[in-house]
Amino acid sequence: MDTLKIVEALVKDRSAWPHESVSLVLLVLDGVGDVRHPEFDCKTPLEAAHTPNLDSLAPRSALGRIMPVDYGITPGSGPAHLGLFGYDPREMEIGRGVLEALGLDMDLQSGDIAARANFCTISGGVVTDRRAGRPPTELNAEKCKLLREELSRIEDVELIIQPGKGHRFAVIFRGPGLAEGVSDTDPHENDKPVHEAEVLAAGAEKTARIVNEFQRRAVEILAGHEPLNGILTRGVSERPLIPGMEDRFGLRSAAIATYPVYRGLAKLAGMELLPTGQSIEDEFRTYVESKGDYDYIFIHVKVTDEAGEDGDFDRKVSGIEEVDVHLPIILDQNPDVLAITGDHSTPCCMKLHSWHPVPLLLHSDRCDASGLTSFTEQTCTRGPLGIFLSMHLMSLMMANAGLLDKFGA
Amino acid sequence: MDTLKIVEALVKDRSAWPHESVSLVLLVLDGVGDVRHPEFDCKTPLEAAHTPNLDSLAPRSALGRIMPVDYGITPGSGPAHLGLFGYDPREMEIGRGVLEALGLDMDLQSGDIAARANFCTISGGVVTDRRAGRPPTELNAEKCKLLREELSRIEDVELIIQPGKGHRFAVIFRGPGLAEGVSDTDPHENDKPVHEAEVLAAGAEKTARIVNEFQRRAVEILAGHEPLNGILTRGVSERPLIPGMEDRFGLRSAAIATYPVYRGLAKLAGMELLPTGQSIEDEFRTYVESKGDYDYIFIHVKVTDEAGEDGDFDRKVSGIEEVDVHLPIILDQNPDVLAITGDHSTPCCMKLHSWHPVPLLLHSDRCDASGLTSFTEQTCTRGPLGIFLSMHLMSLMMANAGLLDKFGA
Repeated sequence: MDTLKIVEALVKDRSAWPHESVSLVLLVLDGVGDVRHPEFDCKTPLEAAHTPNLDSLAPRSALGRIMPVDYGITPGSGPAHLGLFGYDPREMEIGRGVLEALGLDMDLQSGDIAARANFCTISGGVVTDRRAGRPPTELNAEKCKLLREELSRIEDVELIIQPGKGHRFAVIFRGPGLAEGVSDTDPHENDKPVHEAEVLAAGAEKTARIVNEFQRRAVEILAGHEPLNGILTRGVSERPLIPGMEDRFGLRSAAIATYPVYRGLAKLAGMELLPTGQSIEDEFRTYVESKGDYDYIFIHVKVTDEAGEDGDFDRKVSGIEEVDVHLPIILDQNPDVLAITGDHSTPCCMKLHSWHPVPLLLHSDRCDASGLTSFTEQTCTRGPLGIFLSMHLMSLMMANAGLLDKFGA
Repeated sequence: MDTLKIVEALVKDRSAWPHESVSLVLLVLDGVGDVRHPEFDCKTPLEAAHTPNLDSLAPRSALGRIMPVDYGITPGSGPAHLGLFGYDPREMEIGRGVLEALGLDMDLQSGDIAARANFCTISGGVVTDRRAGRPPTELNAEKCKLLREELSRIEDVELIIQPGKGHRFAVIFRGPGLAEGVSDTDPHENDKPVHEAEVLAAGAEKTARIVNEFQRRAVEILAGHEPLNGILTRGVSERPLIPGMEDRFGLRSAAIATYPVYRGLAKLAGMELLPTGQSIEDEFRTYVESKGDYDYIFIHVKVTDEAGEDGDFDRKVSGIEEVDVHLPIILDQNPDVLAITGDHSTPCCMKLHSWHPVPLLLHSDRCDASGLTSFTEQTCTRGPLGIFLSMHLMSLMMANAGLLDKFGA
């Protein structure tokens, strides 16, 4: 039997838990992993950052490194987070449209098809700016309202449109005979013509027709609304049916995250989405307020990934330091298990997600304390947890909380 | 092809062995792995123990850590040992009854059903002591004799009863139409009524009926024999057919172990059970006497696990030191390959088996000497073997003995 199935089978009934309640915390510093590079003085942001709280926690914790998918594979946010939540990301495919719709708290039903969409600027059939000059969210909302009013239905398919941040919005197509398997109308580069949505899988013919009609009509409706005079769709996809944290691990779980895509991923995994503020401190305080109601809480910090993607070493360092400053808010609650890690690495010298294994700190009363005096890529490489696939982190967290039975006699 | 199958296919014929005979030794210190915990001064028993012989062997050996099943999974003795013997424990299920019967040297045949049983004390249908006051083995043998005389058959099923240690005994049910898949009559807690054996798998109806009748009749027979006035059954199971060490690896193999369960596991893997004394020194001397007759010898030391389960740090330390004192008995024989490890960790702070990877020392002439100056969890974490699944240890031992061909041209 496969390891994750074995773990699911070993999950104890709540009545057999060591305490009445447990608190497992997964703190994800998105893209926190980095590599030593001459451009940045051969130090990683974790090495450069001043992190007294992490430094004090590290020796009392088990360190290691996790690989989101496997050797050499650079993950998107979807697989990277699904791994952290205990799924085998090699076995799942979650479309970008689904993630966006779920993250915007849209009600994505079975059979619905979701698309991630952008407002863009089009001139003579060519996309001149795929992000329409990065409009303020209010302008985005106004144009979504216009589309909603003018374009609520195509054939027998209902359209549900919801603005996101900046130039981003999501569309749900709801009606009979839809299936995923069509290509993006987004050309993924400026100065290229809008693409035709093509059928990639049998059964997706109607979806392709509807998406192309949506693309055409939206551009008609937005004519004259420069720079938001066009739209582009991508990641047209269907919500997959995956068992959630409660089904698999018996855990009441919640997510504290500010960006739609991470909220969407958490929702797919069956977590409740907690309202929270925009700062790291806000997120940590939300944990304190909510911890009594949940067994497992996922907290997502975005700044480290953004800084990595911008190649902004100093901002990545200050993001890590901001987490460190507020870490006592979480530590003071004495969670039974605290895992601090990233979903993947985003090295500043690459300005991209990467495949490099991500530092992991796992703290619990029975974690196998490492004695290592800091939390960096280098110390984590020498930690007792070794290098392993992210999908096993959830098993380790459950084991450390005493929530798994013994396997076999 | 799966790795273990590849290894089996690479096993050399005896005629192609580097020497006429080889000596592979697997020395298992049951539950030896531990974790650093403030309760025990943040040292593990291996770190605290005075082990000059292990310290001298470590730099000339390859160190690493092995995981019995996979990340976060705490194994019972069965899966833990099957991993060490080169099986994938995720693919095998061995019932407790089978282990107990084999360990008591009972002749378990194809189609037989075996149960582990306890004498217990029952009052008014309720189990007041699941271990019947931990009776001496002689008293147990006497009551087994009584049961044998009064209850040799139920319907067309023959009963074969054999006393174990203390309150434990085993029963083999031999007859047509039996199959595994019934629940325990043992309630697994004191002050609960005896359970009914329930059918868990199609085909096990007759087995459930026989087990329940055995339970009922045994209690009748033992009436008035307080504190041994009842019995409980668990782990009702069928002997699985698994290929042994000779079939898989071409090795004549033997086991030196004093506890039934480990003897049972060794027998399942096709090893001969060698008579031995109760002390560690006795076991090691049995190795010296028998090594000429076998290619592979498994030696099992129990004290480290018992001490861990009792949370008795000092006893775990002294158990390790006792092994170290007598280690030259084995080393003087210059075995071609010597692996010293545990089947799993049993941290004193947990008093339970755990999932933490187990220290491994692998010594041979071609082992890739680590230069590390002690055998502890921490040094093994840094060793050249890394952290890997126990099921690969057998492949490594075979390779170190020069018994595997090259894979591919």
